Amino acid sequence: MTHETAHDNRLRSLAAQYGTPLYVYDADSFGRQYRGLREALCPRVEMFFSLKANPNVSVCALLHSYGARAEVSSLVELRTARRAGVAPEDIIFLGPGKSAAELAACLDEGIAAVVCESFGELESLDRIAADRGQRAPVTLRVNPAFSVKGSRLTMGGKPRQFGIDEQALYEAPDLVDRFPSLRIAGVHAYMGTRILASEVVEENTAKILDMAERIAERLGFPLELVDIGGGLGIAYFHGESDLDAAELTERINPVLEKFAAARPQTRMIMELGRYLTAPAGEYVVGVRYVKESMGESFAVSDGGTHHHMAAVGIGSFVKRNFPIRLVGAEPAAPTRPWNVTGPLCTPNDTLVTKAELPDPKPGDLLAVGRSGAYGPSASPGLFLSHGYPAEVLVHEGRELLIRERDTPDDLFAKQRLHAFPAR
Amino acid sequence: MTHETAHDNRLRSLAAQYGTPLYVYDADSFGRQYRGLREALCPRVEMFFSLKANPNVSVCALLHSYGARAEVSSLVELRTARRAGVAPEDIIFLGPGKSAAELAACLDEGIAAVVCESFGELESLDRIAADRGQRAPVTLRVNPAFSVKGSRLTMGGKPRQFGIDEQALYEAPDLVDRFPSLRIAGVHAYMGTRILASEVVEENTAKILDMAERIAERLGFPLELVDIGGGLGIAYFHGESDLDAAELTERINPVLEKFAAARPQTRMIMELGRYLTAPAGEYVVGVRYVKESMGESFAVSDGGTHHHMAAVGIGSFVKRNFPIRLVGAEPAAPTRPWNVTGPLCTPNDTLVTKAELPDPKPGDLLAVGRSGAYGPSASPGLFLSHGYPAEVLVHEGRELLIRERDTPDDLFAKQRLHAFPAR
Repeated sequence: MTHETAHDNRLRSLAAQYGTPLYVYDADSFGRQYRGLREALCPRVEMFFSLKANPNVSVCALLHSYGARAEVSSLVELRTARRAGVAPEDIIFLGPGKSAAELAACLDEGIAAVVCESFGELESLDRIAADRGQRAPVTLRVNPAFSVKGSRLTMGGKPRQFGIDEQALYEAPDLVDRFPSLRIAGVHAYMGTRILASEVVEENTAKILDMAERIAERLGFPLELVDIGGGLGIAYFHGESDLDAAELTERINPVLEKFAAARPQTRMIMELGRYLTAPAGEYVVGVRYVKESMGESFAVSDGGTHHHMAAVGIGSFVKRNFPIRLVGAEPAAPTRPWNVTGPLCTPNDTLVTKAELPDPKPGDLLAVGRSGAYGPSASPGLFLSHGYPAEVLVHEGRELLIRERDTPDDLFAKQRLHAFPAR
Repeated sequence: MTHETAHDNRLRSLAAQYGTPLYVYDADSFGRQYRGLREALCPRVEMFFSLKANPNVSVCALLHSYGARAEVSSLVELRTARRAGVAPEDIIFLGPGKSAAELAACLDEGIAAVVCESFGELESLDRIAADRGQRAPVTLRVNPAFSVKGSRLTMGGKPRQFGIDEQALYEAPDLVDRFPSLRIAGVHAYMGTRILASEVVEENTAKILDMAERIAERLGFPLELVDIGGGLGIAYFHGESDLDAAELTERINPVLEKFAAARPQTRMIMELGRYLTAPAGEYVVGVRYVKESMGESFAVSDGGTHHHMAAVGIGSFVKRNFPIRLVGAEPAAPTRPWNVTGPLCTPNDTLVTKAELPDPKPGDLLAVGRSGAYGPSASPGLFLSHGYPAEVLVHEGRELLIRERDTPDDLFAKQRLHAFPAR
């Protein structure tokens, strides 16, 4: 039995046990992504897992067991990281619209830094910390005056809700003194997402490190912490290639090591979400019907937009296919291209268009690959009241249920029925 | 005190009680939309509420109290309609990928019709009904050979996962005899969505009624039921106007009445989702921070993509603004255009761009109007682990909580934490 067949047998068995649609994650893949980069990367750089990519508490615990720290962006993500065992000093909290409760929770936990994104937030946090008699460690998220090309969503050099404009910081030279209950200790910048070119990461890194030194010097605070963001991508589509950890680190390590040598006390942080988690996940759907319509072939499956909006491509300008395969299929030449659609009542609910697949039939399973990031948590799971799917993590031969499927009762649990007499 | 002020005071009080973000629905608006059309529309046409637009059980119960029947597309939507008091004979079940459990539930309940969307589904339902010794009432969803321009997502005349190609039906003249446990009793077509032109509805209606007669005659079944779909839109954006019920019915009633007179026994169904619910809803968000970035003004609020993807415009090619207003603001000329963004870490998380608003400040409330359709249930509520918001229905002066806000514990309830020793 080949490895592929054993894996497919497992998927079939998991689908039978937990039903489809189903997310299945492979711990070995998380490990390969984490360790492959960890072993090659400048040792001074700490790898922070961005929980937003996959917020399951067991995924966080697994990555933490390899050594990952945590970058969180909500109260529940903060609690998730803590439950997963991440120490407070290895957590940072990011996000343009933190609530007072979230800021207070950061102080309760004593996390490494609150990444502040506006003057208003600095004021709020200063007031909250003062009321509690605490001094809050803060890094400044900066909207750089420059931008670097090569990411899918450029984040620097434009008007944005994120961070404080670099220029505005230079116009506030008294910033550190203005907030006596804050300890301004670092700089954070995030330059873009889904970057697949090493030279772009290198350029981002060099420019952010330069900027951090410039800002710390101009505002007069010790640079205890610098967060170079991340944005490392994963190849999803035809023609894309994954970043190579060896090539990437060959480029960025000299930049990082030069900074590290000059600043032996400064914590250096890189954030990784999609890069660590995307390759590990498969979205397994069951085929319910096959049909022809006006010359095209459709496999109507039980999964789609409500669980995997990224694969469906909502929010993308061009529909491109995530990798998809027929589970357990003998190698067979496709006889025709297949559209794989979902159960929703919208033509957008299409997982892949004109994909090369051996002919699927009702009852078959299809697996959408590279689905470990921005899957169910980034999808409208309540649409058409279908609910969120089960998630299983395969770890050292064990099949661990890490999220239960929503039941119909779950969908009703928060609703209240009031009576309206007919009139 | 003006009505507007009273309403804004209520929004402030509800926001204080339930927190923001918050959805607030106005029962009077649901009533106006339903009755305005009901009173003008050809009386033989039954109005079916498409639950997918707003699946809350109390919203369904309210619309049912006015007389609405139910069009459902999942097991939970079916249960919702039943809990809301809709009689089985006033329910139809639609959707391209129904599960065996859903088909069985349709038979358990004895609903008016299963709207079948493929030959494969006819086979499945026939088998399930045969096993139970039942005969299942079915309407055929047809993918028409024609299309009508003027909707936002044209659904006819193209290869689609929905329905059975009209031509394919003509090539299956023995269809009725092929499935002894089905009672093929009607035709359904859905031609598009967000239609704002009466003449397009008229053309759709006329063509669908013609097609239904043609198909019933060619396949030899009595036309017990015809579903003309719907797709009636609501004005969201600058330059759009609502359909006028008087003008609409002036155009379509003659078409409907002619058909009705010729077929006194045929049930006539129109589906309405967005039309009935969109105007009734406001999405109320709190402003957390205001900031300037590179010459633009931002109000960072606590709501956005995770609750109201439609307003954010993800999935739309062009970002256009839903109506938005500052709650309780004195009429004041805007001093500058405002971008209202959310708490998520993506630049897409923008409710409105360059909107005319009196200057908001932290603590203010903003209300996004026309938000009663495809709101939280069509949005990724678990993104960044924020959870789904509370929903309140204001009915005859009473403020009815119809959905509780997700708590942090709710977000953890389905997850399981496994231990992974560091290695």
